[in-house]
Amino acid sequence: MPKSVYLAGPEVFLPNAREILDLKIELTRAAGLVPVSPGDLEFPPTNSKWELGLAISAIDEKLMHSADAIIANLTPFRGIAADTGTCFELGFMCAQGKPAFAYTNVKADHGARTRDHFNGEWYADAAGKPRGPDHILIEDLGFIDNLMLHGGVVNRGGAVVVGDAPAGQELTDMTAFKRVLALAVEMLG
Amino acid sequence: MPKSVYLAGPEVFLPNAREILDLKIELTRAAGLVPVSPGDLEFPPTNSKWELGLAISAIDEKLMHSADAIIANLTPFRGIAADTGTCFELGFMCAQGKPAFAYTNVKADHGARTRDHFNGEWYADAAGKPRGPDHILIEDLGFIDNLMLHGGVVNRGGAVVVGDAPAGQELTDMTAFKRVLALAVEMLG
Repeated sequence: MPKSVYLAGPEVFLPNAREILDLKIELTRAAGLVPVSPGDLEFPPTNSKWELGLAISAIDEKLMHSADAIIANLTPFRGIAADTGTCFELGFMCAQGKPAFAYTNVKADHGARTRDHFNGEWYADAAGKPRGPDHILIEDLGFIDNLMLHGGVVNRGGAVVVGDAPAGQELTDMTAFKRVLALAVEMLG
Repeated sequence: MPKSVYLAGPEVFLPNAREILDLKIELTRAAGLVPVSPGDLEFPPTNSKWELGLAISAIDEKLMHSADAIIANLTPFRGIAADTGTCFELGFMCAQGKPAFAYTNVKADHGARTRDHFNGEWYADAAGKPRGPDHILIEDLGFIDNLMLHGGVVNRGGAVVVGDAPAGQELTDMTAFKRVLALAVEMLG
């Protein structure tokens, strides 16, 4: 039976969310895997946006429990780091011992992006570790984001693909997604 | 037997990380719970920063598997959203069905912080939903961060505490942590 993959990422917020989600769904299906995508299930009627939020959370967790693996889009979202919901979902799948894959459409790694965030104003402390002007440590391990995310994927034998999308297409470009999808197919069979 | 709680948060990056981690550890112990804190286990010798990152990831996952519950510090870190490693860890514990608690030291919720991020330049779309100048949806549900995080905690019966730390003390103030710790004690017994 073909394996199913939960497609995590900030695409749900895009103005053309349905189009981009459908594109990822079609690519996944064409690759021989079963796509599981946020928005696949209808939300029950709720009385407030608070209840709606809780309902969506519960449904997405149910979808994740049903999926065999995850492909997480860790492209920076509104800042220098990945979408926090996607990070939660990657951890959620890793805890279940399921194969995990990740990609980013931004070439600069976490350390480089953080140094940019401080306009290059960083220094090496007595131990040689980089810190920002606020003296807070800059994790600089060559990872695409915090080590729990990149490490969680690699330690499970999954792949992390680093893309380099054209400016303005960081949240819609499919090049890196296609590459990580091919690697997921190879591993999941 | 007293329950153990994994203390997730960006404190590990602070210049006085050891001091702040120890403070949270002492407060947790004084409250009658067993603190489980990143950095509790020694890292094995590694040959590169890459290997070190993977080793820390594996150790923190082991610590999370050992803990009965989590208290996640979701205070915004280097931007408008929570530390991505902490988000991964909250998802990791939620997937195991363990009780989850969260707090933030910043009063403004996710929607308000995102509107501030765009300097107040947002608009309501045809469906009445707020969007930034980039037309990307602003999740505005009254939650402290993405709905998967806030929803994951609330849907498990956990508590989310919103603090209001003085400027400059957002990453060190213990007021909200003490409040959420008291609620965790109540629930975990």
